[in-house]
Amino acid sequence: MRILLIGASGTIGNAIVKEFGTDHEIIRAGRNGADVEVDFTSPESIKKMYEAVGKVDAVVSAAGRAQFAPLEELTPELNETGIMSKLKGQVNLVLLGIPFVNDGGSFTLTSGVMMDDPILKGASAAMANGGIQSFVRASSIEMPRGIRINNVSPNVLIESMDKYAEFFQGFKPVAAADAALAYKKSVLGAQTGQTYKVY
Amino acid sequence: MRILLIGASGTIGNAIVKEFGTDHEIIRAGRNGADVEVDFTSPESIKKMYEAVGKVDAVVSAAGRAQFAPLEELTPELNETGIMSKLKGQVNLVLLGIPFVNDGGSFTLTSGVMMDDPILKGASAAMANGGIQSFVRASSIEMPRGIRINNVSPNVLIESMDKYAEFFQGFKPVAAADAALAYKKSVLGAQTGQTYKVY
Repeated sequence: MRILLIGASGTIGNAIVKEFGTDHEIIRAGRNGADVEVDFTSPESIKKMYEAVGKVDAVVSAAGRAQFAPLEELTPELNETGIMSKLKGQVNLVLLGIPFVNDGGSFTLTSGVMMDDPILKGASAAMANGGIQSFVRASSIEMPRGIRINNVSPNVLIESMDKYAEFFQGFKPVAAADAALAYKKSVLGAQTGQTYKVY
Repeated sequence: MRILLIGASGTIGNAIVKEFGTDHEIIRAGRNGADVEVDFTSPESIKKMYEAVGKVDAVVSAAGRAQFAPLEELTPELNETGIMSKLKGQVNLVLLGIPFVNDGGSFTLTSGVMMDDPILKGASAAMANGGIQSFVRASSIEMPRGIRINNVSPNVLIESMDKYAEFFQGFKPVAAADAALAYKKSVLGAQTGQTYKVY
């Protein structure tokens, strides 16, 4: 299977590459040092990426940022990171990518635990995650040519606890390898419209 | 209670005004002909509205548009309506409104049934609705001074079926007056972080 992976250099991206192994062709997309460069906050850059890559069987997004900030310090401007990157970046990967996905192919996006189990400073990320989940559920009923779409909602990762432990107090982190399994289930399975909660 | 109602001239807005009756002071905000003008796709306009209105006990949003379009015709540009209006418009009402809400006051936003029960052409609206639901759940744990926040997720309205029946085939519409009750529960009750599903 030919799989385009956006956010390949991140912790989850690396685990996905490892999980899929050598049975599949993984095309790594990212901001630098990848097989193909993309800034997915720009629709133009997304279009160029798809044109460079051509037809694929699966698009997997393990990318998307959002600003962590206390609610009273979360300005409309700071909230833009989550809107532009985690929400619109991923949605636009789908809207612009449909013509490049082969019949019976799939999209897999990333949401996150904060939409279900909120944390301090997490309102902007939760907003983006909830938007992704509902977009996936709704767009799944309109996908052409048997294309499927799911999203993976990972918990905080064991591998990221050095950076994120203060935000996720009392959370039981999961291994990136366990999150990667959910992406595999989405790509190689047959379900659509699903949220795979890795928690 | 002093209640700022954005989207007062819409079908739900009118029903909310009727439900609250004369026991409360309702300040109607909208694009034209209201007590105070606001274009809530503009943070500047939201700020001016709050400065003109001053302190309130409740902010209720019954506003927010999104583009209905078949998924394959939904461009990033068409998706901007839902991003700018239904999602960011409502989120910015909260982010910019906190200093203007009295201790123990509340915000009530509007999501919608398509996030749970998707319809054809509804992916953009579903995305915005899901974002609102998760933003409400997450921001509720960080509200200062006992301020609460909920969202109402109405079904399609009986009063709107002349316009929307083709989109909501097989849905059992609800009366705007029933939706209005959920806003009253949010404003005059004590719950927070909730989604009141009127379906």
